[in-house]
Amino acid sequence: MLRKINRHLKSKIGKTPPNYSVPDLWTESVSDKAFLNYISDGEALVDPYAFYSALIETNFIENEFKTATPLSKRKQHHKVGGDWLKESVIYSSMVRTSGAWDNDRNGKLDEKNAYGFKETGTFLKMMAVLPMLKRMGIDTVYMLPIMEYSKKHKKGDLGSPYGVNDFFKLDDALKDDLLSDSFTVEEEFKAFVDAAHTLGLRVVIDIIPRTNGIDSELIREHPDWFYWIKASEKKHYKTPWVEAYKEAKAPIPKRMETVYKDKDVQRHIDMFEHNPREKNPELFEKIKDSDDILDAIAETFDLTTAPAFSDNINDPQPPWSDVTFFRMYLDHPRETRQYLDTTDRPPYMLYDTIKSNLYEGDVPNEALWKVLEDVVPFFQRNYGIDGARIDMGHALPRPLLDRIISKARNHDPDFGFIAEELDMRYAVDAREKGYNIIVGNGFMMQHRIFEGKAQKFYREAKDLFAPILGASETHDTPRIASRHGGRRLSVALTVLNMFMPRGVPFINAGQEVFEKQPMNLGLDATDADRKHLDLHDPYYNKLALFDPYQLHYTETGRHLLPATMQKLMPLRKQWLEKIVSGDDVSVIEEGVTFIGYIYTLNDKRLIVLANLNPDFHFESRMEKPISLYGYDLTKTNLLYSTHFEGKPLSLCDEQGRMHVWLDANEVRIYEI
Amino acid sequence: MLRKINRHLKSKIGKTPPNYSVPDLWTESVSDKAFLNYISDGEALVDPYAFYSALIETNFIENEFKTATPLSKRKQHHKVGGDWLKESVIYSSMVRTSGAWDNDRNGKLDEKNAYGFKETGTFLKMMAVLPMLKRMGIDTVYMLPIMEYSKKHKKGDLGSPYGVNDFFKLDDALKDDLLSDSFTVEEEFKAFVDAAHTLGLRVVIDIIPRTNGIDSELIREHPDWFYWIKASEKKHYKTPWVEAYKEAKAPIPKRMETVYKDKDVQRHIDMFEHNPREKNPELFEKIKDSDDILDAIAETFDLTTAPAFSDNINDPQPPWSDVTFFRMYLDHPRETRQYLDTTDRPPYMLYDTIKSNLYEGDVPNEALWKVLEDVVPFFQRNYGIDGARIDMGHALPRPLLDRIISKARNHDPDFGFIAEELDMRYAVDAREKGYNIIVGNGFMMQHRIFEGKAQKFYREAKDLFAPILGASETHDTPRIASRHGGRRLSVALTVLNMFMPRGVPFINAGQEVFEKQPMNLGLDATDADRKHLDLHDPYYNKLALFDPYQLHYTETGRHLLPATMQKLMPLRKQWLEKIVSGDDVSVIEEGVTFIGYIYTLNDKRLIVLANLNPDFHFESRMEKPISLYGYDLTKTNLLYSTHFEGKPLSLCDEQGRMHVWLDANEVRIYEI
Repeated sequence: MLRKINRHLKSKIGKTPPNYSVPDLWTESVSDKAFLNYISDGEALVDPYAFYSALIETNFIENEFKTATPLSKRKQHHKVGGDWLKESVIYSSMVRTSGAWDNDRNGKLDEKNAYGFKETGTFLKMMAVLPMLKRMGIDTVYMLPIMEYSKKHKKGDLGSPYGVNDFFKLDDALKDDLLSDSFTVEEEFKAFVDAAHTLGLRVVIDIIPRTNGIDSELIREHPDWFYWIKASEKKHYKTPWVEAYKEAKAPIPKRMETVYKDKDVQRHIDMFEHNPREKNPELFEKIKDSDDILDAIAETFDLTTAPAFSDNINDPQPPWSDVTFFRMYLDHPRETRQYLDTTDRPPYMLYDTIKSNLYEGDVPNEALWKVLEDVVPFFQRNYGIDGARIDMGHALPRPLLDRIISKARNHDPDFGFIAEELDMRYAVDAREKGYNIIVGNGFMMQHRIFEGKAQKFYREAKDLFAPILGASETHDTPRIASRHGGRRLSVALTVLNMFMPRGVPFINAGQEVFEKQPMNLGLDATDADRKHLDLHDPYYNKLALFDPYQLHYTETGRHLLPATMQKLMPLRKQWLEKIVSGDDVSVIEEGVTFIGYIYTLNDKRLIVLANLNPDFHFESRMEKPISLYGYDLTKTNLLYSTHFEGKPLSLCDEQGRMHVWLDANEVRIYEI
Repeated sequence: MLRKINRHLKSKIGKTPPNYSVPDLWTESVSDKAFLNYISDGEALVDPYAFYSALIETNFIENEFKTATPLSKRKQHHKVGGDWLKESVIYSSMVRTSGAWDNDRNGKLDEKNAYGFKETGTFLKMMAVLPMLKRMGIDTVYMLPIMEYSKKHKKGDLGSPYGVNDFFKLDDALKDDLLSDSFTVEEEFKAFVDAAHTLGLRVVIDIIPRTNGIDSELIREHPDWFYWIKASEKKHYKTPWVEAYKEAKAPIPKRMETVYKDKDVQRHIDMFEHNPREKNPELFEKIKDSDDILDAIAETFDLTTAPAFSDNINDPQPPWSDVTFFRMYLDHPRETRQYLDTTDRPPYMLYDTIKSNLYEGDVPNEALWKVLEDVVPFFQRNYGIDGARIDMGHALPRPLLDRIISKARNHDPDFGFIAEELDMRYAVDAREKGYNIIVGNGFMMQHRIFEGKAQKFYREAKDLFAPILGASETHDTPRIASRHGGRRLSVALTVLNMFMPRGVPFINAGQEVFEKQPMNLGLDATDADRKHLDLHDPYYNKLALFDPYQLHYTETGRHLLPATMQKLMPLRKQWLEKIVSGDDVSVIEEGVTFIGYIYTLNDKRLIVLANLNPDFHFESRMEKPISLYGYDLTKTNLLYSTHFEGKPLSLCDEQGRMHVWLDANEVRIYEI
């Protein structure tokens, strides 16, 4: 496919004005710059056909090549049941954003720009990002959802790709106009995965089996898989509020009696209706092929799918307007049936029907489960993906989760799974279910320096049962470069994450160029986090998850983090076994802002020291030296410091102890 | 023509990508911004056809309109023999530069850009500058040469428009690609002049009757109008050096005996040859229609035209590679014949044959004179121009100059002439010859603050016989914004020039946006003046007179000078009679940096005070208050100050004297 695409691109060279702009970062892998017409301020002006063709020829064309084959099946290597994820370095990205660029430089991302091309990200454009990731030492590309998603009641101009409407179709917007009508979006994605594999990068996709878009394609054949309310009453629909609890609570079984007794919960349950086909099968048959199925149902039956909401009791978030939950069981939960007369009661969404892991029914929705367990195999067969993150996997019935995981591993024994598990206490549980690594809570801990949370996170990681992400941010959180400490803190944490025991370094797209604007405000964010950009920035106040957005790839300083990672990656590889196992490492701390690791391998030591305090004040720099008993300063070798200016502050006292002072947000690495 | 051009443009709307960039300053006159797609950082992205069409419709379409008619003939007004120039405010510009813009934003001015368009200036593009000039109070556009010029031995990439090859053809490069093949460059210029006239702006062109391009079109029919040397010896050709004088001297008659005795002068004179037709008429006839006439003559006769050089004895400038002098007389100068055996001596260039105003012959080159005297009438008849500057007019035979001026005034009694006379002592002489104003030496005086030259210039202006330009810079000098004092000095002088007695405010294109890079280094410049731009500026080290160049129209602060002029222009108009006459004005000074004028009209006073010192030091701000005896502070009205911050420093003492302190480069205007 890549060769065919390349031929197509070559045939079009010269067909468009040669001042199509791309970030210069995208062009660095191609040393023959014949495609380049001008470069300035981080932007390169190119003939797009010539550029993408040169990109493909330089990076992605291999002689012996198996298409749609996971990397594990292409390499002769020892099978590890997906545990390559433990050793991986992950880059999280959303194609629509990572591949976006204002190619005609008119200050916005057009659907059709001055040359007739779409400017939001596509698989082709995102191929240009891959060589940069490779240089940074990334070996796994994790992709936010790429399937066809709901455009109904969408947030922002484009809507969230998490509201999937069809698991087996790709979002057509991810197809590039440069490939015109010669290639389908499926072919383009296949070429993308092949390209990643050629560079040795694995591809992990996001699957969302717990919810679906409110106007899911599945409604046509399976209205009974969804929850329904009256369309005319939707305006009154809200997350129920359990008066007795006052605040957010986990929906554990002992709380459900109270929940069911609550008046607002009863009001909420009473809103639900039977599905339209059950109400009138003939009428439903007539309308089920309407273009807009949800509108048709609303008009004919005054019914609509109920928006999903958080699975935590009294979570203050409003309902999620674009998604609805699947009915995992066709009867009411076994454990809570007692609290309600269920005779002829329409299925309803509540904490128990949402959290199917805790609350099972007697009648699994077998037909749905069959669809859900086939999503990963579909992507394995057609594209050769290497792994998946399961969104809200914690709310799936355990038998379904088992089937999803085992079916994928049947196809590829080395298929990897990432659990969306934020609570480090459930690491054991996740491994037992078959997940390889968990997401963890790094992005909530790492920036909380003065509360001691960062130190706690880095201290406890080594004893975790499952490896966790060494992540300072995700697509749901504020950006680390926008936190107090900014770029300095961002560099320090990125380096530290590469050397934390049992950590899987994780870079959220944009983090490498100090992007300050979050993609979403879903986690640990306030409304103020929408406003990190300059008022005159074209992307001010925009969230990539909902709006056209391009990363600030031309930012001054855009080379710092990629270069730092590139420089340190060989050292990480050298110590990888110790880092991944968490064995033979001791942790040193001082105050609440200093943390360090001493790794041992035979007679060698790797000492990683970090001052998490981002502030340049006298105390931070000079007070509280870290003392390393028994290490002879004269034999240490300073391999690296985030701070290049000046000499490292350290001395060896008469007792042979080494004292080290670190500058604000300095990370220093010694070898002995 | 404007209506026809507008129809053509309208028919093309949508035919090109709508991200053609123009400076936002060019778009301000059009309030209906339908043409505008995006605006940022001083650039507007437009559909060019829609933009120029809107520009024309908004500004240049009139109901009753006479094409190719000078403004004086369009208005019913009192004829003043061209003396409208005394009251004028002049903007000097070179179309190739003033209308230039990197429309495809690829960092350079292309001959064919990404959309297939030329990016150097054209008459159409320069129309977009006119409304800005109008707002600034400019009423006269003076245009550097627009005729077809020599591309042989040119300096820079484009060569200087001063090497005119054909007086009666316009430079084809000034034609815009947007008008494709539907309009000639002549039609485009006609439309430009009509457009200027519609806004009430007069058009003055530059004519160069003393020299011509080295491969002038006139050579074909009139090889005897030029001076010839051997082509094979051209490499030895240089400006003669008169050993006896050691330094530059004016070539007055009493020095010529010494000049002719000099060995280097004799060497120089001996280089000249008879013209090719005289050497072999038949052979010349054969080759005279060759495409490249100069090459053909060199190959056939080993002859070439001699490069011109300065008319000052021992001027250190090398010869001017692209131009040659006309032979004004067909015999040797009367006054210097005695110094040389002229028997069969080929005509030669020397200070006497150059300065035909001082050294006449007996046989005027009547055929040439007829051509030269018809240049202005040609532009009057075809385009309706309003005036002309005569380049090196001081070196023309007086009878020829008289014919040029009277022939123009025959056609339009109100036609204006500007003398290229830098020496203020010759102001009387210039008026007597029929010139309306002289250039003067403002650009050499105004920035020389601490030597007292600026003060002297502003002090003496009121007593001049001819009005002079109030010019801080010209196309030949360094930019005022690049002088010590920079933008602050530039604002102060621009304001002061608007109120100097007998001054004609003169803005050199780019001065209004604080352009720092000179267009040429011909006057009062050093080599260092080539390097005023940032090293990364695409126009670093470029000179507009020779290279593709665009003005820094998007500079921050680009609105300050235009807005200042717009604001003060009504006040200038109110006091215009007094300013132009230089009557009823007294000059006040203090130290070498303070200058002021007090104008009187009936019982009103206008007080203009300027501190020319650009430096913020204690003495400049506070010391040496200007004292105005007899003015009661309580009755003065502060109309304007260049410095808005803080309160004006002034007080009235017990004797009723007003003391005023001015900030560095502050200009303040009071009315009493």
